[in-house]
Amino acid sequence: MKRLHLSTFFFFLFLAGAATAQDALPSWNEGSAKQAIVAFVEKTTKAAGPDYVKPEDRIAVFDNDGTLWTEYPAYSQLFFALDRVKHLAPQHPEWRKKQPFKAALAGDLKAVAAGGEKGLAEILGATHAGNTPEEFQAIVAQWLASATHPQFKRRYDRLVYQPMLELLAYLRANGFKTYIVSGGGVEFIRAFAERVYGVPPEQVIGSTIVTKFEVVNDKPVLRREAKINFIDDKAGKPVGINQFIGRRPIAAFGNSDGDFEMLQWTTAGDGPCFGLLIHHDDAEHEAAYDRKSSVGRLDRGLDEAQRRGWSLVSMKNDWKSIFPTTHH
Amino acid sequence: MKRLHLSTFFFFLFLAGAATAQDALPSWNEGSAKQAIVAFVEKTTKAAGPDYVKPEDRIAVFDNDGTLWTEYPAYSQLFFALDRVKHLAPQHPEWRKKQPFKAALAGDLKAVAAGGEKGLAEILGATHAGNTPEEFQAIVAQWLASATHPQFKRRYDRLVYQPMLELLAYLRANGFKTYIVSGGGVEFIRAFAERVYGVPPEQVIGSTIVTKFEVVNDKPVLRREAKINFIDDKAGKPVGINQFIGRRPIAAFGNSDGDFEMLQWTTAGDGPCFGLLIHHDDAEHEAAYDRKSSVGRLDRGLDEAQRRGWSLVSMKNDWKSIFPTTHH
Repeated sequence: MKRLHLSTFFFFLFLAGAATAQDALPSWNEGSAKQAIVAFVEKTTKAAGPDYVKPEDRIAVFDNDGTLWTEYPAYSQLFFALDRVKHLAPQHPEWRKKQPFKAALAGDLKAVAAGGEKGLAEILGATHAGNTPEEFQAIVAQWLASATHPQFKRRYDRLVYQPMLELLAYLRANGFKTYIVSGGGVEFIRAFAERVYGVPPEQVIGSTIVTKFEVVNDKPVLRREAKINFIDDKAGKPVGINQFIGRRPIAAFGNSDGDFEMLQWTTAGDGPCFGLLIHHDDAEHEAAYDRKSSVGRLDRGLDEAQRRGWSLVSMKNDWKSIFPTTHH
Repeated sequence: MKRLHLSTFFFFLFLAGAATAQDALPSWNEGSAKQAIVAFVEKTTKAAGPDYVKPEDRIAVFDNDGTLWTEYPAYSQLFFALDRVKHLAPQHPEWRKKQPFKAALAGDLKAVAAGGEKGLAEILGATHAGNTPEEFQAIVAQWLASATHPQFKRRYDRLVYQPMLELLAYLRANGFKTYIVSGGGVEFIRAFAERVYGVPPEQVIGSTIVTKFEVVNDKPVLRREAKINFIDDKAGKPVGINQFIGRRPIAAFGNSDGDFEMLQWTTAGDGPCFGLLIHHDDAEHEAAYDRKSSVGRLDRGLDEAQRRGWSLVSMKNDWKSIFPTTHH
């Protein structure tokens, strides 16, 4: 009787322990990616273990486009810019005959892309600048509340990846500080990152445009200008991480070659470290693209992930679902 | 008997409440500055009160030079640069005959200053660049452990202000997140901010030089270049705050006109807010300087503090002591 009691106790203890890790990531299929994540979190948080990492050094960095939400067939921020051109068009009758605005008004992504960097810079200037960060974030929030993705027919902020929301929460529950490190605009992401991802504004690192301090009628304002300040992509990601965080992360999550240097930097640290790339291979539920894609190209990462010890997530095989099924 | 019990209980409750606030700032004399600080913290943390501020919005920003540690007769980072020139001189025999290095080697601050921005940029390049952030921070840490301030004959990291250490701790104990927002170099400050101030690297905002990502023998490194990236002073302070924190602080602490825009921005928010300027008027224990000083000039701030509702701290009258008396 006494022995039964004890073994029953240990049996439930075992179940409880296993359940904690498994239930935190219910949208992940059992497989090497999930196993690697759980093993990394468990070893870095085990107080007496050889791979223990102090809470303040548990920094995890996440790319946004294609890693936390969809980037297919184009970045959501580009859809925002095109919608914004349409919204502002009545005040700019000249746009009807002038590229790249004519293409933007026609919703012609290919023609917009044909305008190259110069064309994109013109659209950026017309849609992202001339206001304050607060005004711009309010515009983005309003757009998110009303706009629908052309292909998936959902609000953009409901095209986030359910397995990644679970991963963010799982890491935070284990004392990790989660940062977004994105090539997208920092104020664009800050407009929804706290509500949607639980990531506060001070943990969003992104590309920036020049912002100037002005005093108008003794009231200080920050004014966004139509001029690039910093591109937080590729080699810019470790630079941005060092500038903002000042510590090397121990875990990095991305999906494209734009994240390569971030993973390379993160996984070159002295202690335990973790790198993971998401492979978009689920054409049925989202999209399948990699080496030849114009958005989120993943080429070098596919070649080198294994050699570098980075996990490669197959969205098709590792994830049970892509987008949240419930309202949030 | 019962009444006595109850009044005794309330008496001790009152004592305990009063003691909490008073003991947190033992190096501050009773006066309007201390009263204003305590009143602000109490009203913003009183859950049911009209001025309650949620913990995530309790952002407090502190200038460093002249606000948290001494800047007299010159910024500590300048003394570091001059010591570094001496340290590196054997490898640069040409410096003995070449300005601004000749002046630096002679410890001639006036002659160094006469070289202007160009001269300072040359010293900066020779002493701050060409290494990685980790290497640079190790150099600074080593210097702090061994160098002595020429006038106060103490280690530089023991020339921090005891009343401000208490204030940092008091704010954090009340749920505030404390940031440094300094015109000094971010990596210079990060080398000691966590140990000395309890401010982690990700909460240090400062001036930066260009840092490049490189891969050497498949090992990724960040390389500091002899080129200014961002000056976090004057109007740059609110710009830096917005870029890094993305929220408007509710409290700002400074000592010079270089902090004016930071206080202006902070105290223009919609909710409760607090601004404080430290006036260096204690010639006996530190230094007395303001309107005409070449370091930490305080001119406009002296004129406008009262009108803007900012507290003005007299180091002579408001502080019981300047530097910590015990080892730390």
